[in-house]
Amino acid sequence: MNRSQSSPLGLSGKESGQERTSAGRPATLDRRLVDQLSKRFDSSRVRFTLWDEPAVSAENRGLPVTLRFSDRGALLQLLTYPEANFGDLYSSGRITVDGDLRIVLDEAFRHASQNPGLSRVLARLRATTPDLSDSRRNIHHHYDIGNDFYRLWLDREALQYTCAYYANPAMSLDQAQQAKMHHVCRKLRLESGEHVVEAGGGWGGFALFMAKHYGVHVRSFNISTEQIAWSREWAKREELADRVEFVEDDYRNISGRYDAFVSVGMLEHVGLGNYRQLGALINRVLTAEGRGLVHSIGRDRVIPLNPWIARRIFPGAYPATLREMMEIFEPNGLSVLDVENLRLHYARTLEHWLENYEAHVDAIRSLFDEAFVRAWRLYLAGSNRAFEHGTLQLFQVLFSRSGMNAIPRTRAHLYASGD
Amino acid sequence: MNRSQSSPLGLSGKESGQERTSAGRPATLDRRLVDQLSKRFDSSRVRFTLWDEPAVSAENRGLPVTLRFSDRGALLQLLTYPEANFGDLYSSGRITVDGDLRIVLDEAFRHASQNPGLSRVLARLRATTPDLSDSRRNIHHHYDIGNDFYRLWLDREALQYTCAYYANPAMSLDQAQQAKMHHVCRKLRLESGEHVVEAGGGWGGFALFMAKHYGVHVRSFNISTEQIAWSREWAKREELADRVEFVEDDYRNISGRYDAFVSVGMLEHVGLGNYRQLGALINRVLTAEGRGLVHSIGRDRVIPLNPWIARRIFPGAYPATLREMMEIFEPNGLSVLDVENLRLHYARTLEHWLENYEAHVDAIRSLFDEAFVRAWRLYLAGSNRAFEHGTLQLFQVLFSRSGMNAIPRTRAHLYASGD
Repeated sequence: MNRSQSSPLGLSGKESGQERTSAGRPATLDRRLVDQLSKRFDSSRVRFTLWDEPAVSAENRGLPVTLRFSDRGALLQLLTYPEANFGDLYSSGRITVDGDLRIVLDEAFRHASQNPGLSRVLARLRATTPDLSDSRRNIHHHYDIGNDFYRLWLDREALQYTCAYYANPAMSLDQAQQAKMHHVCRKLRLESGEHVVEAGGGWGGFALFMAKHYGVHVRSFNISTEQIAWSREWAKREELADRVEFVEDDYRNISGRYDAFVSVGMLEHVGLGNYRQLGALINRVLTAEGRGLVHSIGRDRVIPLNPWIARRIFPGAYPATLREMMEIFEPNGLSVLDVENLRLHYARTLEHWLENYEAHVDAIRSLFDEAFVRAWRLYLAGSNRAFEHGTLQLFQVLFSRSGMNAIPRTRAHLYASGD
Repeated sequence: MNRSQSSPLGLSGKESGQERTSAGRPATLDRRLVDQLSKRFDSSRVRFTLWDEPAVSAENRGLPVTLRFSDRGALLQLLTYPEANFGDLYSSGRITVDGDLRIVLDEAFRHASQNPGLSRVLARLRATTPDLSDSRRNIHHHYDIGNDFYRLWLDREALQYTCAYYANPAMSLDQAQQAKMHHVCRKLRLESGEHVVEAGGGWGGFALFMAKHYGVHVRSFNISTEQIAWSREWAKREELADRVEFVEDDYRNISGRYDAFVSVGMLEHVGLGNYRQLGALINRVLTAEGRGLVHSIGRDRVIPLNPWIARRIFPGAYPATLREMMEIFEPNGLSVLDVENLRLHYARTLEHWLENYEAHVDAIRSLFDEAFVRAWRLYLAGSNRAFEHGTLQLFQVLFSRSGMNAIPRTRAHLYASGD
């Protein structure tokens, strides 16, 4: 993979450069193509302009957004395979957006939902089953690009790179991430002294939270080298290293017996073909009265991950439908107790991340090149719109062994404290 | 089908009669067989006795239960296919139980869970796809055996023949059924003036409840002639006939547009092969901001319905796994918002039903023959144990159209009132 320190996206210089055509006025063909695009897109909220048209701002045109092509190649690429090419064209600056990027994305989602095309048929073909070395490469690609970068826009307190829980809509990002962690711990009914295993622990914030607030012992598995190093340092600073062990290893190597299994935001990277094996592992490590929770991005129906996201942002990732997720539980004698869809909480979380991102964009520019800055803006904004439009879901699935009767009769205990 | 007014089970006189062998003392073979059975069953809580052994009561033997065979044929039938034959042998009195029947059933469930055998492989083969005439016959078999009978042991107030909701464990059956109906209405967020369609309305108690307590208009579909007649009378008595319409027709013929679709305890009779069509129907009749709830008995994994239950009690019924239920939602662009497993609530509901059943057993004897009385005792006790052991689940699945954003952010509103 062509990666440099400053541009983990693997965009080559050539792609980043603006390949302007030599034309002064657009050829008749260009004009026809952009008219066709406007017609297909059928939106009064977005206007397409060509490289040699005057750059009148969207506001002055009385439109929310204008989308501008820098060259004929950009226009042709967008026309031929928009889902795959928009990302790189936007990142490299060959497409620029004057106005709110999210409006363009909204219209794209609307357009896609009316024209599902072949994408659904392709979804199954794209679903991969990563082996251990695939997983290491995929995780490294996304999570090892620099802890300093993530710290600029995630919540300060717990560095949670997963959906927060806005128990009330006025919550800050920090409050909502704390509320998310409480919500998960309450679902699992963690009790002091119990042993918890975490699969995919991020920067360690949730493992430390469980130890601190619920008095449990935690073993947390992660294959991101940078995250593990950070987690261990953090545990020492918090004086929790005796109760929280961070293991730099794959979830497939979890051993021991635990009162609870928890995985927040890892299933996306596991791969459909490994779900049954994951369930077998959970079955093996849970005590008789053990509880488990899987928190993951999902889908209402099988559709492929956007090809640009799959190539540049999350290689190997796959958001599964609930039916697909059942492959973890059903063959392994696990009983699903509760499923909660937190889709709009992820839309809100991403809004907060995007606000932080823009607020610290100068600091991000000092770490990465402009193509990276634009790509991650697009990724965050696109994800926000995907959750808002219902293209993505967020499922929390609580489970136990089949026939385990030490379970609360209602879910009222989750709502007793008001957060 | 061989049915008489007094014995809807279809047990012939011959089957009901006790085919005693002429033997005085049991042959060596019988003794060996019953020893083998004891050994296979491996329980210190149940003792098997033969027809010519003295009938010392279980209590005097210091055991919870004795199970007594009336003849050699009964013993052989139990040995060859216990899951299918126990029901008829018990119903006809060829097997009698001295002590708590549920203890025998507990041991049978324990034994089955340790010896899954072929039953799981057979499950798929047994899953049927009833057409309209199958459905009419199946529903008639179970639900048209007499409203007076069901009134003797269901809750008084709403005649709910589905899982109740014990918001607190001290609730009576009547309170828990009211709480169940509130729980469902709150999940659906019914508002006064809205239009609701119900698929499979039982005796109409829930439709009337929704109209009365939530001010909605209800159309309720049911193919049980006796239940529809009852429902219409009841609506008149309650002066709700202008707001609740009971339609004697199959759910497949639902038309119109509704703010909510609800089905409590019908999916068990729909048949796997009809799930996708059911989802398409829901999709067709729901408004853009419509909500839906399916409440159904289910499974953690695919196992066949007990063959005796399938033959005598619920022909055509199939409790689906969550994965199987997703066939309703996933292909039809519906989004699952919330799944709650109320398994132990159904165990408790059945406990209450069984108590009422025994309290009114003399009245039931005046309606049906002894084989029926025993069969239904077995069915209720067996179902109670199935939910307790986790062989059966109860899923409430709440859903909406994909991308519908007029949804509450949390489920706290379900727990605000304390019931």
